[in-house]
Amino acid sequence: MTKHNDAPSSNRQWGGRFSSGPAAIMEKINASIDFDRRLFAEDIEGSLAHVQMLVEQKIVSAEDGRAIADGLRTILQEFGEGKMRVDPALEDIHTHVEARLKELIGPAAGRLHTARSRNDQVATDLRLWVRKELDAADRGFADLQQALLDQAERHADTIMPGFTHLQSAQPVTFGHHMMAYVEMFGRDRGRLQDCRRRMNECPLGAAALAGTSFPIDRQATAGTLGFDRPTANSLDAVSDRDFALEYLSTAAIAASHLSRLAEEIVIWSSAQFRFVTCSDSFSTGSSIMPQKKNPDAAELIRGKAGRLYGNLTSLLVVMKGLPMTYGKDMQEDKEPVFDTADNLALCVAAMTGMIAELTVNEGPMLAAAGSGFSTATDLADWLVRVLGMPFRDAHHVTGELVRLAEEKAVDLDGLALDDMRAVEPRITEALFDVLGVANSVNSRQSYGGTAPAQVRAQIARWREALR
Amino acid sequence: MTKHNDAPSSNRQWGGRFSSGPAAIMEKINASIDFDRRLFAEDIEGSLAHVQMLVEQKIVSAEDGRAIADGLRTILQEFGEGKMRVDPALEDIHTHVEARLKELIGPAAGRLHTARSRNDQVATDLRLWVRKELDAADRGFADLQQALLDQAERHADTIMPGFTHLQSAQPVTFGHHMMAYVEMFGRDRGRLQDCRRRMNECPLGAAALAGTSFPIDRQATAGTLGFDRPTANSLDAVSDRDFALEYLSTAAIAASHLSRLAEEIVIWSSAQFRFVTCSDSFSTGSSIMPQKKNPDAAELIRGKAGRLYGNLTSLLVVMKGLPMTYGKDMQEDKEPVFDTADNLALCVAAMTGMIAELTVNEGPMLAAAGSGFSTATDLADWLVRVLGMPFRDAHHVTGELVRLAEEKAVDLDGLALDDMRAVEPRITEALFDVLGVANSVNSRQSYGGTAPAQVRAQIARWREALR
Amino acid sequence: MTKHNDAPSSNRQWGGRFSSGPAAIMEKINASIDFDRRLFAEDIEGSLAHVQMLVEQKIVSAEDGRAIADGLRTILQEFGEGKMRVDPALEDIHTHVEARLKELIGPAAGRLHTARSRNDQVATDLRLWVRKELDAADRGFADLQQALLDQAERHADTIMPGFTHLQSAQPVTFGHHMMAYVEMFGRDRGRLQDCRRRMNECPLGAAALAGTSFPIDRQATAGTLGFDRPTANSLDAVSDRDFALEYLSTAAIAASHLSRLAEEIVIWSSAQFRFVTCSDSFSTGSSIMPQKKNPDAAELIRGKAGRLYGNLTSLLVVMKGLPMTYGKDMQEDKEPVFDTADNLALCVAAMTGMIAELTVNEGPMLAAAGSGFSTATDLADWLVRVLGMPFRDAHHVTGELVRLAEEKAVDLDGLALDDMRAVEPRITEALFDVLGVANSVNSRQSYGGTAPAQVRAQIARWREALR
Amino acid sequence: MTKHNDAPSSNRQWGGRFSSGPAAIMEKINASIDFDRRLFAEDIEGSLAHVQMLVEQKIVSAEDGRAIADGLRTILQEFGEGKMRVDPALEDIHTHVEARLKELIGPAAGRLHTARSRNDQVATDLRLWVRKELDAADRGFADLQQALLDQAERHADTIMPGFTHLQSAQPVTFGHHMMAYVEMFGRDRGRLQDCRRRMNECPLGAAALAGTSFPIDRQATAGTLGFDRPTANSLDAVSDRDFALEYLSTAAIAASHLSRLAEEIVIWSSAQFRFVTCSDSFSTGSSIMPQKKNPDAAELIRGKAGRLYGNLTSLLVVMKGLPMTYGKDMQEDKEPVFDTADNLALCVAAMTGMIAELTVNEGPMLAAAGSGFSTATDLADWLVRVLGMPFRDAHHVTGELVRLAEEKAVDLDGLALDDMRAVEPRITEALFDVLGVANSVNSRQSYGGTAPAQVRAQIARWREALR
Repeated sequence: MTKHNDAPSSNRQWGGRFSSGPAAIMEKINASIDFDRRLFAEDIEGSLAHVQMLVEQKIVSAEDGRAIADGLRTILQEFGEGKMRVDPALEDIHTHVEARLKELIGPAAGRLHTARSRNDQVATDLRLWVRKELDAADRGFADLQQALLDQAERHADTIMPGFTHLQSAQPVTFGHHMMAYVEMFGRDRGRLQDCRRRMNECPLGAAALAGTSFPIDRQATAGTLGFDRPTANSLDAVSDRDFALEYLSTAAIAASHLSRLAEEIVIWSSAQFRFVTCSDSFSTGSSIMPQKKNPDAAELIRGKAGRLYGNLTSLLVVMKGLPMTYGKDMQEDKEPVFDTADNLALCVAAMTGMIAELTVNEGPMLAAAGSGFSTATDLADWLVRVLGMPFRDAHHVTGELVRLAEEKAVDLDGLALDDMRAVEPRITEALFDVLGVANSVNSRQSYGGTAPAQVRAQIARWREALR
Repeated sequence: MTKHNDAPSSNRQWGGRFSSGPAAIMEKINASIDFDRRLFAEDIEGSLAHVQMLVEQKIVSAEDGRAIADGLRTILQEFGEGKMRVDPALEDIHTHVEARLKELIGPAAGRLHTARSRNDQVATDLRLWVRKELDAADRGFADLQQALLDQAERHADTIMPGFTHLQSAQPVTFGHHMMAYVEMFGRDRGRLQDCRRRMNECPLGAAALAGTSFPIDRQATAGTLGFDRPTANSLDAVSDRDFALEYLSTAAIAASHLSRLAEEIVIWSSAQFRFVTCSDSFSTGSSIMPQKKNPDAAELIRGKAGRLYGNLTSLLVVMKGLPMTYGKDMQEDKEPVFDTADNLALCVAAMTGMIAELTVNEGPMLAAAGSGFSTATDLADWLVRVLGMPFRDAHHVTGELVRLAEEKAVDLDGLALDDMRAVEPRITEALFDVLGVANSVNSRQSYGGTAPAQVRAQIARWREALR
Repeated sequence: MTKHNDAPSSNRQWGGRFSSGPAAIMEKINASIDFDRRLFAEDIEGSLAHVQMLVEQKIVSAEDGRAIADGLRTILQEFGEGKMRVDPALEDIHTHVEARLKELIGPAAGRLHTARSRNDQVATDLRLWVRKELDAADRGFADLQQALLDQAERHADTIMPGFTHLQSAQPVTFGHHMMAYVEMFGRDRGRLQDCRRRMNECPLGAAALAGTSFPIDRQATAGTLGFDRPTANSLDAVSDRDFALEYLSTAAIAASHLSRLAEEIVIWSSAQFRFVTCSDSFSTGSSIMPQKKNPDAAELIRGKAGRLYGNLTSLLVVMKGLPMTYGKDMQEDKEPVFDTADNLALCVAAMTGMIAELTVNEGPMLAAAGSGFSTATDLADWLVRVLGMPFRDAHHVTGELVRLAEEKAVDLDGLALDDMRAVEPRITEALFDVLGVANSVNSRQSYGGTAPAQVRAQIARWREALR
Repeated sequence: MTKHNDAPSSNRQWGGRFSSGPAAIMEKINASIDFDRRLFAEDIEGSLAHVQMLVEQKIVSAEDGRAIADGLRTILQEFGEGKMRVDPALEDIHTHVEARLKELIGPAAGRLHTARSRNDQVATDLRLWVRKELDAADRGFADLQQALLDQAERHADTIMPGFTHLQSAQPVTFGHHMMAYVEMFGRDRGRLQDCRRRMNECPLGAAALAGTSFPIDRQATAGTLGFDRPTANSLDAVSDRDFALEYLSTAAIAASHLSRLAEEIVIWSSAQFRFVTCSDSFSTGSSIMPQKKNPDAAELIRGKAGRLYGNLTSLLVVMKGLPMTYGKDMQEDKEPVFDTADNLALCVAAMTGMIAELTVNEGPMLAAAGSGFSTATDLADWLVRVLGMPFRDAHHVTGELVRLAEEKAVDLDGLALDDMRAVEPRITEALFDVLGVANSVNSRQSYGGTAPAQVRAQIARWREALR
């Protein structure tokens, strides 16, 4: 490597410093071009904003500025057309752009790097990229909410068992159940929006770490790039990856919601439940068992929670205990972010499609809702409301009646009035009115409750919000 | 539960249902009283709000309501005085309160549970607890910011090396460095506040999962408890733990910041750096090496990042793939939250004390800032600004000069002008002006840069914000 | 420490070094006595071995040695009787023992610390504790295997659907299913045993970090404490926590197995499956829904996977990037280990009880096994075996027959022979023999297959291994 | 999609079952060919073993068997030559092989899938792949141990400060320090070997999940593929990913060791320490600061701990709560395994190179070892040994002497004998012998201690073991 100072290592930007070049293994562990090429458009966008400011501030001549901007736009076009050659020796995306720019416009290319460092440049690139993904994820979840709202509206009156502990607890409506997820994804969107607002500051101009002595205008570059303001501390600007951590944690929480819905779809699709049928589009078969129709998409979404949790763990660990400012450890920030973005988008799209195409089997749901003493609470509430019993006593009487019904192998409304009176003499015929699942559901009129009127009110509120 | 106190399972609230009592092992794995007793005050507070509403809505008589409220206040006082007996057979905090209330006021105690379930009750308790911690953490970080601002002000002109890769890169000021953490903890506070705003909804009234048929007023209880509004979906209300996940992830990100500052203090305290000296209050000695004065507090804070990351992982995993609504898995939500709250508070307090009492050793910092060619960038910038060289060429020339200085074992300002001119003939005497660290620091006047004037402007901005 | 008891820091063992005492906050973050008291017995055990060796090596006189040993045994007894007073100012367990020993026997107590440091002492204590837990966990899993074997034997012929994607795939036996978990827990035990073997080295004698100039006999202390050998590098000895990491990761993998079985029990207990019924001992009721009988123990076990994963994450993060040798961060090693040990023991015991008391509902299992075209593979295999079709073609023909059966709403054996022949003319009456679930199960005679004879062979093999 | 029943979706292996094909999004989330192509060689290897057994068992004719084997070898060769076309519609590697085989040899290709399913096939493929990586990692760590041994031998007498809390504690040798890592990586290798031994069982023949009715010989295929035995339970065989989890946890623990050594290299390379100099091969420069020579490789290795921890988290989460047997979630098993294997190999290779080329700066190390009262323990030990003081008293006297030396700004051997005697009158001139760092180091003769003779003995032991 020593004698090749003019050849391969010559295009390394740290120039004359080294007497020998990096070993092959170093090239491999060090190079980021395989993944940071995804920042290509953002890198050019940032450079265009930077050079425009340099010209406005008369740090670079208008002529050089024009040449640089034209060159950058050419490179962007070449990249769009798939013409950019990737050379692992040019370790990162910035070096690729710089090298190509030099080929295109000559030494003036070097002026682009005035008052800028790779440290603030890559921080800016990644912020631009994450910001775009925050917006895309927000839109994706809004689409998913729409699909859920459509199902909720269609099934505002469809009765199903409400579960706790996967045991039938009280009857609810399928619409109400779908709306629970509308709430969850609504919170996810709130987190994405908060993250965007907080991270929308421009690191460009922090230079290597200390700021610069060139008379740059950071408000200008921030504005050009759509940031609300420049970052307020140059050391923090180049070493901060909060925006990535917050994005990854927001995505991880969203993944927990997606995995819960996915689990429900898997369980509901079982032959034992038969509550829903996934469309063929989101199912697959088996290579050996021809009868299988598996809810693969739901399982994949459920599994991808692991991946998104893992990506969050990765970057949290990377950032633990790093002294200021930039350390090469931080090159490990990009892949978890890219992977989470890709997989979150995929999961949200697949879930949206699955929900939109989901067939809801009302018969099995209704049958299940009516069994298992699911209106026992209604019975207890009747005892409180009509007989004036303290709830705890009512609860105990209800327990006795359930035990009796179990022994007789009937449901609660299968008990004779006399049997009931043997337990609690004040019970009247009127009690039987509250034992039907439809009555039960309709009676839950409290705000946010499962009564169809309540569910429809919430649907209307969300339709408005999503307009 | 009422009259059948004689059987083994008698003191269990699910009453007549079971023919045999839980095994000892079940009692142990099932009981939460060891940790959920921390929710005591919140549980009483929620019950008081609930009973007040029940009276206002005429669901419970004024007389019973008064008895219940008086009983609850008595219990709260007893608890405050350490008089509450913990009985593991009464598995959770709710049962303890209920049992004691019954002792105090008799059967009317049972009316408290009208239109309420343990599911919405515990969700409310935990929200109230987390909300309090969000506020406490916000105040804690504000105090830490104040301590950092004080050090920043004191050392706005104190020059130290700015590091990348733990290699001296460019001179900065210690004040500037402290302000980087003010920014980080400022973002942490933003996340805490966003989390609080988002989670400030009241689950009370969701009952078991479906809402209730009693004519309750959820806006009223929400208002009494300081919530902005009731939750909008009863299924979501009892199964949502987003507020805990968001709190844990916010705390984890904050822990990464604390661990970075802790790492710096550990490194700076080493005999090789000697940049700072921790006060005796936050150091310890060694049992076998009498000369040691170890930065234990910093190391503990660094280590506790692991704990806070682990708590986040725990709850994310618990929530993965849980079908609606409540599952007993969710009982695992409290301990990570409590542990994170305790340890975050401890870390922030210890860091605040450590920073407040930190002695900054200006001599070693200045000496280190001046060595290691730390003004090489200033040299390169001079070549650009004065000689009009493209930055990349200037960078290469600077590299040659550094190599030359290394060979001669001098610093950059130790090179003779002639030596410099052998590399680049246009260099003049004026170049030497930019090679001093003070000049270098003062020249970084860009917004957010390290120039003392910039640092003081940021301090002033934050002083105002923290007022 | 001895004569200067007057100053604030007087009872701190680092003696005369500090001019001011630790702040209250420091005491709180620094003290480990709240949790390391669990190492009490191990700490005394280690000290007894150490002093015995010191006497044998004539480093301490026989008389002093006897006094120290007697004192230590007294302290152990006091501790066992709950008489040890915990003083937070005596920050850790070592200091408590030392202080009490001094009270009991006077200045000779100080000789115990010859050629030893807290660094090697605590490393030894924790190893002894973890080793004990490794053995206990191994026994616990063996008990669980026994419970599974008992169920497997009882249900070697009980037919249930074998699932993939929670869709019925092929009939299997419940005994075969139980045996899958016997294999898993067998691997867990293998990992526990490997961990024990690897970690069974004694750090005592590494002293602070460099070894000691006293003529100690490390083989002797290692032998006394049941270790296979002393650790071979003193720096490693005091900074190594691999044994804890390996234990935590082994426990985490085991928790994944426990969570899978728990999930199955939850699903199987649902009203829709009704495959099993948990005993009352391991179920609980609901405060508002008297009919509920929830598989709480299973859910708690499933949830505790989160906790055990989180503990692993915690310690991995703590150890990341720690320079040699001891850092106070490592004090964070104990609580995750204690918490995992407690919760793993609880989960294994609860699972053992649950499995032992599980009622298997053969009827619903058999009915489910027979539906859903679960013998389609047998049909395809018949086409291959009897008609000589390539498997892929057989698979396709089977798919057509399943589609036909679905259209006619019958199961495969409900199709008329003529219908079958319309799809594949060579099909004969003999095909119907393989469509019964019992035939299907009995035919899976390959090694490890679900045929009852195979299952019984595996049970016998494991009974032998567990003897 | 409906009308293309003959076209794109027709080549899907689940054949006639579906009336419509998967949506584009489903294809994207479902397809694994982008990553499972890495299992290509293993997939063919497994198929060759399977078909050989099928022929031996007369399940497939010798002729068909030969055609299949020849076809498979052709495909392997094509793949090696980069000729395999990847078609995303053929979702996975198995389907690609199958489709190509059919093109090459016609319908006989279908016979390969007799008595086999993708479930046992992919489990076998991944085991073969992981087994190979376990062996490769074991070799990689052995190379790293050799590099460390070479440095240890070279520097068995090189004195450096031994640190606790990054504070100089006692002098040790650099060789001793290197040997600490030899121990750590030795344990890593032990874990890799245990994992290999445990996982070396062959799932092939478990078929979809229940075993098969074909008279296969699982011992034969296991033997052909180098496995010790077939797996003993077919349900477990297709749903077990323990081998991957154990590999990932072993790699994570190893990553903690690598990150610790990396952290030390970063700290030691700082201008303040100057203990070591990384070779140019494993350093990089800065784009803006020409003087920088950054230990990038070390930082990257430290950062990659995050990635390896994250991969472990991912798969643990995926496996949490999965019911038997195969779920599509488990497709998420491959990428974390591949990513960990790639990055672990890279880290180990880079670390080996870095250590091999590391320049150890003996001067700064020795100077640092001698300062900071690093022989205070030797002083205390002298008081014990020579004056017969209890260690705790000796410790206190030493503390007083250190305080005195600090006040006088001298090191311990800079104190006058009279000053010492003012603290402890029995001190003699002889004490000064133990205050030199070389004497201190040489005196630590206990097994595993830092005395050069001890270090050389350990080097010799490891040389032998690594032969």
